[in-house]
Amino acid sequence: MRKLLYSFLLFSAVFSTDLIAQTPLNFNDSDPVKMGWMQGFPPPKDKIVSAIDGSFFKFPALRYSVCHMRQFMPTTVVKSTTGKTFKFKVRLDNNIDAITFTPTNANGLMTWKESLEKNYTDGMLILHKGKIIYEKYFGELKPDGLHAAMSVSKTFTGTLGGLLIEEGVLDENKLGSDYIPELKGSAFGDATIRQILDMTTGLKYSEDYSNPNAEIWAFSAAGNPFPKPQSYNGPTNYYDYLKTVQKEGEHGEVFGYKTVNTDVMGWIISKVSGKSIPELLSDRIWKPLGTHFDGYYQIDGAGIAFAGGGFSANMRDMAMFGEMIRKKGYFNKQQILPSALIDDIMKGGDKEAFKKSSYGSLNWSYRDMWWITHNEHGSFAARGVHGQTIYIDPKAEMVIVRFSSHPEAKNSKIDPTSLPAYHAVAKYLMNK
Amino acid sequence: MRKLLYSFLLFSAVFSTDLIAQTPLNFNDSDPVKMGWMQGFPPPKDKIVSAIDGSFFKFPALRYSVCHMRQFMPTTVVKSTTGKTFKFKVRLDNNIDAITFTPTNANGLMTWKESLEKNYTDGMLILHKGKIIYEKYFGELKPDGLHAAMSVSKTFTGTLGGLLIEEGVLDENKLGSDYIPELKGSAFGDATIRQILDMTTGLKYSEDYSNPNAEIWAFSAAGNPFPKPQSYNGPTNYYDYLKTVQKEGEHGEVFGYKTVNTDVMGWIISKVSGKSIPELLSDRIWKPLGTHFDGYYQIDGAGIAFAGGGFSANMRDMAMFGEMIRKKGYFNKQQILPSALIDDIMKGGDKEAFKKSSYGSLNWSYRDMWWITHNEHGSFAARGVHGQTIYIDPKAEMVIVRFSSHPEAKNSKIDPTSLPAYHAVAKYLMNK
Repeated sequence: MRKLLYSFLLFSAVFSTDLIAQTPLNFNDSDPVKMGWMQGFPPPKDKIVSAIDGSFFKFPALRYSVCHMRQFMPTTVVKSTTGKTFKFKVRLDNNIDAITFTPTNANGLMTWKESLEKNYTDGMLILHKGKIIYEKYFGELKPDGLHAAMSVSKTFTGTLGGLLIEEGVLDENKLGSDYIPELKGSAFGDATIRQILDMTTGLKYSEDYSNPNAEIWAFSAAGNPFPKPQSYNGPTNYYDYLKTVQKEGEHGEVFGYKTVNTDVMGWIISKVSGKSIPELLSDRIWKPLGTHFDGYYQIDGAGIAFAGGGFSANMRDMAMFGEMIRKKGYFNKQQILPSALIDDIMKGGDKEAFKKSSYGSLNWSYRDMWWITHNEHGSFAARGVHGQTIYIDPKAEMVIVRFSSHPEAKNSKIDPTSLPAYHAVAKYLMNK
Repeated sequence: MRKLLYSFLLFSAVFSTDLIAQTPLNFNDSDPVKMGWMQGFPPPKDKIVSAIDGSFFKFPALRYSVCHMRQFMPTTVVKSTTGKTFKFKVRLDNNIDAITFTPTNANGLMTWKESLEKNYTDGMLILHKGKIIYEKYFGELKPDGLHAAMSVSKTFTGTLGGLLIEEGVLDENKLGSDYIPELKGSAFGDATIRQILDMTTGLKYSEDYSNPNAEIWAFSAAGNPFPKPQSYNGPTNYYDYLKTVQKEGEHGEVFGYKTVNTDVMGWIISKVSGKSIPELLSDRIWKPLGTHFDGYYQIDGAGIAFAGGGFSANMRDMAMFGEMIRKKGYFNKQQILPSALIDDIMKGGDKEAFKKSSYGSLNWSYRDMWWITHNEHGSFAARGVHGQTIYIDPKAEMVIVRFSSHPEAKNSKIDPTSLPAYHAVAKYLMNK
């Protein structure tokens, strides 16, 4: 139980994959509004979703929680613009629901509309040439609401890291310990900024939740902002934990998707910029975009934002970010990020290092914490557990934002009915 | 220590009055930016302000925390408008700083400017005839920031209660148990809505923090959203605690300023309106005002907002509320609250009941959780510990909003250099 209590901060598969004995409720039966989570004054005992007992991160309550993360933990704001907000043009295309595709894990065709239910979609938005052509909200998510971005958060950290390299503030060939002397002695001490940004560090660090000795538990415990049990002697914030991560193998050889890389990157970025990730994201991206809604990050007991997974944001605001990336950094009448940065991201990371990883069969690569598919459209994406994504198809001039709350954490369970669906819409738009 | 840990939620005097042995740092020496709270990556150990050890509510760290309450606890949003925001006209009057007044606790004159330091002011805004004539921010508070409203929160709950009476949704002569059957058996069961709203209930309930058996501790523990110690067997949310409050004396006879009245009122309001206090406040007041910034409430482990003291808001947004009240409910081109409600509040509450209370020497009264001074200008105010206030002087057509972080919680320590200062500015404006 203590494990559960201390685990919830990592937004992981633990509750959804390890603790669900039976087939989870389907999309409609797990609708958080219909299920009545947190409704009534007070809500019935069995409808209370809480961080205290860890219930907030268990499916199906998770379908409520992803829209209300700040109700469960301390947070810090990512301020949106106080000036003029950006307004998307809306040209809804009613043909999209009927577009069909072939899931990669089944025979026969599926419609786009069917895929939304299959993937426990909370929100889906498609931009084509910068206009909203599709926009749906389900269950607990409302147009003015926020949703947990999970590991899509990593992409914001990675993009800021790439930006600072582009601006010469960071040198991608320098080592972690060149910027943070406290990292000397940790695995990150002799890893280059590039290796950290592209996650080719060699780390003795397991994110296998089924293993009680996996390092992920110690990371979660350190970042937990709640009072620790008296017996707890470990680090009490993210940074103190990161200093303890040990090296395993060599850096630069194999892609290893491990959240701690992002949090080290967040630390380095904050150290050289003098701003926390939420502050820098607000100043350099969120405000210039003309976003409508403040976002927020969950934080640890020392006020440090969880750079690897703690962001919550509004769907249209996320779409502004995606469209800005698609337009090579230009959006809302200004060059927000240098086009060279986006060009570099789109070229992708080390494909050989990626091939050697557990994700190798995808034949993708990973750059500045973006997933580069290297498909014929040059599509690339930000991706988070339980189905969060920003998916950019440059050739089709399409950006998709999806928020969801799939009972399975791993995107490998959700991709078969998502990636071919996105590609089918892209092809439809190109022939339109 | 356990006591301390469990007490912090009530925004009380405990740390500031009981634990400060020496004279507290003065205004300038306690400036939270100069003190360096939470600066650096990571901040130095002795500059970390945390809810875990209770340090966030100790002066002088309190001067940082009041601007960042969501960094310490779970919260829920009070949405501002997504439409057009209201813009104040600004006509700054440079004469105000030099206005003098006689503090009621000292000889000699003090200037307005001196009073700001004396009162550990974080933000001060004066409206005259609806225009901003004075606006200052100090220390950690910025124009786009939020600040804890402390018990000014009560006034929002009380005003919403009065609104529902005005609209016939609540009957002020009905009993607490008529609306919430679970309150039967508690002190609130046979108290009328009016008695609860005006805090003339007879309660066996002490807010004396120096008494370890005071009921306030049990209320705080119930509302604490963090995991409870294993030995804890008490209620785990505000409502469950409120059901246990016992009667002492008769209702309707003596004014007794006790936070639990507000939280019972919040429960009743939510029950009859079907909305939480943050939702109802947003729908009926915050959005119609055209506020710029989302506010937020701290919440308990069941997601229930702390109606008696949990609100944080922006200073200009607070001023919109004050001005709307001064204009008898009309603001931003609409009648937001019925003028009859404001007329009723301004008439005041039961002066005899007030006289019998520990506040009796003031010769004020209390209505719908507003403090009515009955001075020659008919001034009335929302008031919270450590110096928070919205002060409305109808005769001078003046509204003052002050956020502060005085080392003393009790306004009786702050009033001698505030109330006469406000009155002096009012007289200056009337002769202008």
